[in-house]
Amino acid sequence: MKRLLIAVSAIAILASGPAGAQEVDRVAINGIIDQGLNHSEVMRTAAHLTDRIGGRMTNSPQMRQAEQWTAQQFRDWGLSNVRADPFDFGRGWSIVRSSARMTAPRPLDLRAIPIAWTPSTNGVISGEVVVAPMTTAGDFARWRGKLAGKMVLVSRPNAGSEPTEAPFRRLTEEDLRNANTYNIPTHAAPPSTNPLRELEFARQLDAFLQEEGALAWVRMSQRDGGLLHGTGSGYRMDDQRRTPGMELAAEDYRRLARLALTEDAKPTLELMSEVRFHEEDTNAYNILADIPGTDRSGEYVMAGAHLDSWVASDGAVDNAAGSAVVMEAARILKALGVRPKRTIRFALWSGEEQGLWGSLAYVDRYLATRAPLGDTQLDGLPNNRTWRQRWPIQPREGHGDLVAYFNLDNGSGKIRGINAEGNVAAAPVFQDWLEPFNAMGATTVSMRTSGSTDHVYMQTVGVPGFQFIQDPLDYGARLHHTSIDSYDHMRAEDLRQAAIIMAAFLLNAANSDEPLPRMPLPTRPTPTDPFPFQ
Amino acid sequence: MKRLLIAVSAIAILASGPAGAQEVDRVAINGIIDQGLNHSEVMRTAAHLTDRIGGRMTNSPQMRQAEQWTAQQFRDWGLSNVRADPFDFGRGWSIVRSSARMTAPRPLDLRAIPIAWTPSTNGVISGEVVVAPMTTAGDFARWRGKLAGKMVLVSRPNAGSEPTEAPFRRLTEEDLRNANTYNIPTHAAPPSTNPLRELEFARQLDAFLQEEGALAWVRMSQRDGGLLHGTGSGYRMDDQRRTPGMELAAEDYRRLARLALTEDAKPTLELMSEVRFHEEDTNAYNILADIPGTDRSGEYVMAGAHLDSWVASDGAVDNAAGSAVVMEAARILKALGVRPKRTIRFALWSGEEQGLWGSLAYVDRYLATRAPLGDTQLDGLPNNRTWRQRWPIQPREGHGDLVAYFNLDNGSGKIRGINAEGNVAAAPVFQDWLEPFNAMGATTVSMRTSGSTDHVYMQTVGVPGFQFIQDPLDYGARLHHTSIDSYDHMRAEDLRQAAIIMAAFLLNAANSDEPLPRMPLPTRPTPTDPFPFQ
Repeated sequence: MKRLLIAVSAIAILASGPAGAQEVDRVAINGIIDQGLNHSEVMRTAAHLTDRIGGRMTNSPQMRQAEQWTAQQFRDWGLSNVRADPFDFGRGWSIVRSSARMTAPRPLDLRAIPIAWTPSTNGVISGEVVVAPMTTAGDFARWRGKLAGKMVLVSRPNAGSEPTEAPFRRLTEEDLRNANTYNIPTHAAPPSTNPLRELEFARQLDAFLQEEGALAWVRMSQRDGGLLHGTGSGYRMDDQRRTPGMELAAEDYRRLARLALTEDAKPTLELMSEVRFHEEDTNAYNILADIPGTDRSGEYVMAGAHLDSWVASDGAVDNAAGSAVVMEAARILKALGVRPKRTIRFALWSGEEQGLWGSLAYVDRYLATRAPLGDTQLDGLPNNRTWRQRWPIQPREGHGDLVAYFNLDNGSGKIRGINAEGNVAAAPVFQDWLEPFNAMGATTVSMRTSGSTDHVYMQTVGVPGFQFIQDPLDYGARLHHTSIDSYDHMRAEDLRQAAIIMAAFLLNAANSDEPLPRMPLPTRPTPTDPFPFQ
Repeated sequence: MKRLLIAVSAIAILASGPAGAQEVDRVAINGIIDQGLNHSEVMRTAAHLTDRIGGRMTNSPQMRQAEQWTAQQFRDWGLSNVRADPFDFGRGWSIVRSSARMTAPRPLDLRAIPIAWTPSTNGVISGEVVVAPMTTAGDFARWRGKLAGKMVLVSRPNAGSEPTEAPFRRLTEEDLRNANTYNIPTHAAPPSTNPLRELEFARQLDAFLQEEGALAWVRMSQRDGGLLHGTGSGYRMDDQRRTPGMELAAEDYRRLARLALTEDAKPTLELMSEVRFHEEDTNAYNILADIPGTDRSGEYVMAGAHLDSWVASDGAVDNAAGSAVVMEAARILKALGVRPKRTIRFALWSGEEQGLWGSLAYVDRYLATRAPLGDTQLDGLPNNRTWRQRWPIQPREGHGDLVAYFNLDNGSGKIRGINAEGNVAAAPVFQDWLEPFNAMGATTVSMRTSGSTDHVYMQTVGVPGFQFIQDPLDYGARLHHTSIDSYDHMRAEDLRQAAIIMAAFLLNAANSDEPLPRMPLPTRPTPTDPFPFQ
């Protein structure tokens, strides 16, 4: 317990007893730090994934290249059992080139990107603009008969926004204190929204525009400042979109929409989108690689990050950064020649951007099965209407073998701590593991539950999956999924720090006498509270 | 003096005696406020200048259109003596279309804009990239013989920067207090830099690249985040550039530069720039319009803003905003049917972005002449080596007639006060004039000297020229000369407030019993201090 007592972090959660204490091999950590700071290859890895390969849409040629290159890197570094683990995904899609241009009332090049999985325009197409905001199928009636031969602007133009906060920031001590919040679940009746509404509407809109004979649909970027995203759906083999779609910079979109309101300066829009579909292999692949364990090789610990990205830029902070950190942790541990008790596994997920499909496929194949959909009684349970969150859960044989999973997917900011996901038994262990890195800014164990990335489905089946807390930098403000998510905005010092901590956590988890404490297996949830208005 | 005593501004500069007091016709100001808030046309004007006409490069077809349209607006509003006042400028230039694309090691559309006054590429050109940073002619030797048939990247790639401050901000009370600083001149020997160095280097670089047979030159945007500018020189008829030049988004430029350092993934760049030169009329035109004076019609007061802009976007906050405010002030005063003692003149300047040429031409023609260059003795005086700042000054007959000039050219932020440009005698008058607008946020008279826009040359010849203090918003942070300077980022409430204050200042200055106090005519400056190291 000595180490804990000398920790000076203002927000240290003290271990309440020896159960939480874990031996940390500080000599090994010295070696990890030396490898990670003085012999780092994390930026070389990140540069290859971004500058060389570029945006890595699931099942695109770029993602295939990334799968091969990362697997080869793992092999070159001496990892074992390097493999591409397939799961059913759908078609790939890639952009060859595109352009957008206003030709009336004056000529102007516009900033645009094809929307993912929409088809090519087959050359340059040109047409009048109709501003026809549609967000549900109920909006179609208003525009029926008015869209033939038109460029349909489907977003409602907003007033825009000005950035009144600093886009780039690091967590303050106060932020970190506030981060330690236990997410107490509500048992109020869940909102009755359909989680698939967005996808369904995208299909309906595509069909409606086809029926109406629209030339193309155009969406406004959700961010100002000329930034683009191009995210979309339509990758499933039974879901083929037929109307070309482009996203325009918000400023360009609003200019068109304003001009469309004039009497004598109606705009004409010219679009060109040349894209390719890739259907030769509809499997996506998670890349897995191991450092085999010795004494307890049946058990394993795991680090993961998603390798796939969107394509408006090079998928740098989302998530070449996390992928490079996971790979660098593997390289560091191999370079040090560690022989861990438990196996250490590294995972580069695919299909994350479309629904965490890669990590979900791993859970399904190796950790637990779920009750199928369609059972009326089960469907009626709260939060039980999609397969992803489905009770009951049937653990697979390997369920207990995965001792801990650590995810990294919040940009290139350094690690400031870890979300314990409500696991109060694991928290003091993490505090112990973080202590050697307090002076690098990693201090905080939060009880918080984090979401939207690849540890989520492990948590839902009772496997200890965790996501680190990172400095946000300008991830959310301007980089996430945007046209400037390139190598330029990754921070080398931050990624080196993250790789060191990732490697140390893996080694600690692999060598600890006791496996990391687990949460109870999720079972049928409590019924909703009796009164919706209480 | 009553009005001054009830002023509540924390930073009010109290008038020291009745000399500073000016009668303010508050009934007229009520009328101005009603017109400006309840019957405003400022955003309609701004929309036409930006959405309809677009970027207004001096002598481009768009600027010609703007000259005609603004003159017609003045006429339609009933202004007198509306005229286009010519001055020698040079050729116009406009973009028809352009594109940039990386074709190796992978295909990628890039964000680019032709650099102003560089020629077309004559179709798509393609070549290898050479990163050859050059900032003086001394750098040429290193690259001689290495640029033939190449795309020459002339900027030194930097590490980029992350925005750690809020881009959009308003002035705080503290900012305003700090703004009241008298710029005490230094009489140290001026730095020996050549003010024309940048222009000379641009010419030398163009000639060098021609000699070497380079395909094109490529510059890195000075801002991150995918923003572009495209500013350039080469408009004088004796200065024709021969090498096409493009500016690339910083992220795109750095990616090329990084790939150029690899052994096996050298990039190939494809550029297309279709531009037009306009040499049929090499005069630029200031648009002038008057509300004739009555009792003192030989004297006049004046408001001005530059109508020309750069072309990466629509020249909205720089400076359709200021132009629309000046025009709106004219409209308001005409709508109220004011009959001022002195004439009120409105000026929309051209050629501001290339060197304040329009307002300088006005000064030269109507206010004062300067000693020509080439006199060794005069050339030896400090700050006397360019014509623009040249002593001695010979006032023209009309020098005394211009009683006050008010400029607006700092974006679309509302007016928070005015820079008195060291004129301590005018300051209490301004404080008096601002008082009715304190509750709209306009409170501050600063002794500060401001620069870089069209009041500057009036000040240098002893005519009282002033620039208002405006909330900065995101003018400097991301809009100034950039590809997102469009209508979207102008603030309607701010521009309406500015137009009201501009109109009131003009009416006050036109009707005051005494003309605004003047500064002494600038004469031969004091010699530099004796020791450069003191």
